[in-house]
Amino acid sequence: MADILGKKDFQVIKEGITYPQGIKAAGINCGIRLNKKDLALIYSEKVAEAAAMYTTNKFKAAPLIVTENNLVKSQGKLQAVVINSGIANACTGEKGLKDAWEMINYVSKGLKIKEEYVAVASTGKIGEFLPLKKIEAGLKEAVPMLSISGGTEAAEAILTTDTKKKEVAASFKLGEQQVKIGGMAKGSGMIHPNMATMLAFITSDVSISQGLLKYALQQVVEKTFNMISVDGDTSTNDMVIVMANGLAGNPTIEEKDENYYKFYQALYYVAEYLAKCIVKDGEGATKVIEVEVQNAVSFKEAKKVAKAVINSPLVKTAIFGKDPNWGRILAAVGYSGADIEPDKVDLYLKEKIIENGQPLEFSRQEVHKYLESSDEIKIIIDLKMGKDSATAWGCDLTYDYVKINTKYN
Amino acid sequence: MADILGKKDFQVIKEGITYPQGIKAAGINCGIRLNKKDLALIYSEKVAEAAAMYTTNKFKAAPLIVTENNLVKSQGKLQAVVINSGIANACTGEKGLKDAWEMINYVSKGLKIKEEYVAVASTGKIGEFLPLKKIEAGLKEAVPMLSISGGTEAAEAILTTDTKKKEVAASFKLGEQQVKIGGMAKGSGMIHPNMATMLAFITSDVSISQGLLKYALQQVVEKTFNMISVDGDTSTNDMVIVMANGLAGNPTIEEKDENYYKFYQALYYVAEYLAKCIVKDGEGATKVIEVEVQNAVSFKEAKKVAKAVINSPLVKTAIFGKDPNWGRILAAVGYSGADIEPDKVDLYLKEKIIENGQPLEFSRQEVHKYLESSDEIKIIIDLKMGKDSATAWGCDLTYDYVKINTKYN
Repeated sequence: MADILGKKDFQVIKEGITYPQGIKAAGINCGIRLNKKDLALIYSEKVAEAAAMYTTNKFKAAPLIVTENNLVKSQGKLQAVVINSGIANACTGEKGLKDAWEMINYVSKGLKIKEEYVAVASTGKIGEFLPLKKIEAGLKEAVPMLSISGGTEAAEAILTTDTKKKEVAASFKLGEQQVKIGGMAKGSGMIHPNMATMLAFITSDVSISQGLLKYALQQVVEKTFNMISVDGDTSTNDMVIVMANGLAGNPTIEEKDENYYKFYQALYYVAEYLAKCIVKDGEGATKVIEVEVQNAVSFKEAKKVAKAVINSPLVKTAIFGKDPNWGRILAAVGYSGADIEPDKVDLYLKEKIIENGQPLEFSRQEVHKYLESSDEIKIIIDLKMGKDSATAWGCDLTYDYVKINTKYN
Repeated sequence: MADILGKKDFQVIKEGITYPQGIKAAGINCGIRLNKKDLALIYSEKVAEAAAMYTTNKFKAAPLIVTENNLVKSQGKLQAVVINSGIANACTGEKGLKDAWEMINYVSKGLKIKEEYVAVASTGKIGEFLPLKKIEAGLKEAVPMLSISGGTEAAEAILTTDTKKKEVAASFKLGEQQVKIGGMAKGSGMIHPNMATMLAFITSDVSISQGLLKYALQQVVEKTFNMISVDGDTSTNDMVIVMANGLAGNPTIEEKDENYYKFYQALYYVAEYLAKCIVKDGEGATKVIEVEVQNAVSFKEAKKVAKAVINSPLVKTAIFGKDPNWGRILAAVGYSGADIEPDKVDLYLKEKIIENGQPLEFSRQEVHKYLESSDEIKIIIDLKMGKDSATAWGCDLTYDYVKINTKYN
């Protein structure tokens, strides 16, 4: 971390979405789910510049369509986000769209803000309708509970099969001003984002133009959320939203200057942290797998290789089995469709085990020990073709993944 | 089956590669593996027209490179194929190539045929070298054992984690002549062929030009072997070989006339049968899943949808769990990248359960019963966009898949 941001300037805080100035949140149970919080609200005292990215799945869920509409109408401004878990409001047609608008309406009335300043997100089962009465009542309860200590409750309320809440915050200096950034996310299964991702919400009190905020988000998502995979399935409801309300009081970032890159790095840190949390908490996962592809002819080619390896069920089961089965890794490199030359490929798994596409002598036992004792397994693939690199994160494939996705009723 | 081939004309026989005239085979244990046959030999009394398709994996194993070389040199003629299981001879560099040539040399000497008339295939562990002495001795044993009753032994010798041998044969009439065709295959894991496939060998006594034989093979493979998937992983060793020795005595097929299409249909039948056997015997599979995509704008778009659904771990686990989770199926349709309109999609799972992208009322219990009681689950997706269709075959994702691929040592 932090080429431009010095260590001195950059501090990581454990929690969360309400760390930036003027951000409040709440998380409650409104009755969609039995014994778990299921409704979260994020609120910025001041209207914030905002940007979002959405799933590329053609079955785009109603809340995404409605949020996209609002962001166009408000020209990239938001003041609140409402999120429910339990029901995804996807594949619900006209009624689903109406329901999403209703949720926005409740929030707008409750907070006395413009409808177009409200975003909505949903996660859970596809094809069911939202229980609007419960959500309406829930929001009446949640609005007065909004507070700077409500971040953790909100982070809990958006979870589905996740086993842990995912939140992080950081602060950094832009000249004299202390700027804060915070975020929360949910993931677990159906995770293979593409141009957008599972649910993630990031807030900051930085002052920045909407155009640059959107640009920064796109750049960061491409290298963080879009580089993780639990099972290769891209959901209908993936979305990332970022809000920046300017309350830090820094001179507004309006061009790609040093301050922009400092903010970019902080945003990158938060996004990468949350993305890794999602992978660590992947359904049934016992290990995080990091695949770094070096010296590709382009980022795109490097990404193809990294994604093929991270998605291979055979690589994932081998890691679960703690076996240094490099043959499966090379096979995935070979079918990735990327521009590679087999005779040039080097592979590192704890140590260099493949050189120029062929096995070196290595201690199987040593590597087995590494696979057994480490929670994070690092695979490095050197293509020796060019200068670009890409890193992808995934997890192993276990009995519990099958169990969770078989017996979820 | 059989638009042109009448039922009367077309007979299915259970076994196997030696059914056509002049084809002999043998299968033995030569000591690569402990208690399982591991060396197979197929021999045609007469030099046969031949064609092959190979994996698209860039780490193409040595036997494929050597076989491709030989088929170029012989201008598409073969008289024998030697196959070993246990070691794949992949990622083995120059030595691997030499070893593959050695195997060809042993066969050429043993059978007293030209080197260029011999093909070689290997399957098993990647990155290990072949025990040539054992193979040489094994071939000395196998050559005198070649017989028309050796097909089943050969079919057994090529298996790896397969639990069942896969073989089939058929006969059909071309005018006055009775023509025979037979085949055998191995599959199980790392099955997601692309332009070529796992190991499959098909023999016929039909008389056909090499050009048309190759063309027919390509067309058939595209719609059969290339439409199956166990885990989405494309192996380094996938190969299909077809040999036609002309001993049936039919007038040589030299253009796409009625006789060509009769042969094409028989070849299609054999390839589809073997492809389905591979899926049924997929690692840990309890059910075959057939996904038929109808009314796409092109075969290519239909194939994208069918492949996305058949490869989705979430769909595969839901089928294992006997849950009619249509949301996961629609999500896969949506992220397939294919040209679709969500609001037009109909989905059938036993009955029509989705119309125009939205759920109909259906009996969850009835569909659950269907998922529970059937070994073959059929999913039909009607895109209502065009006129082309594609069918893909896969299997469910089970605890045993994870087990087999974790504890394989």
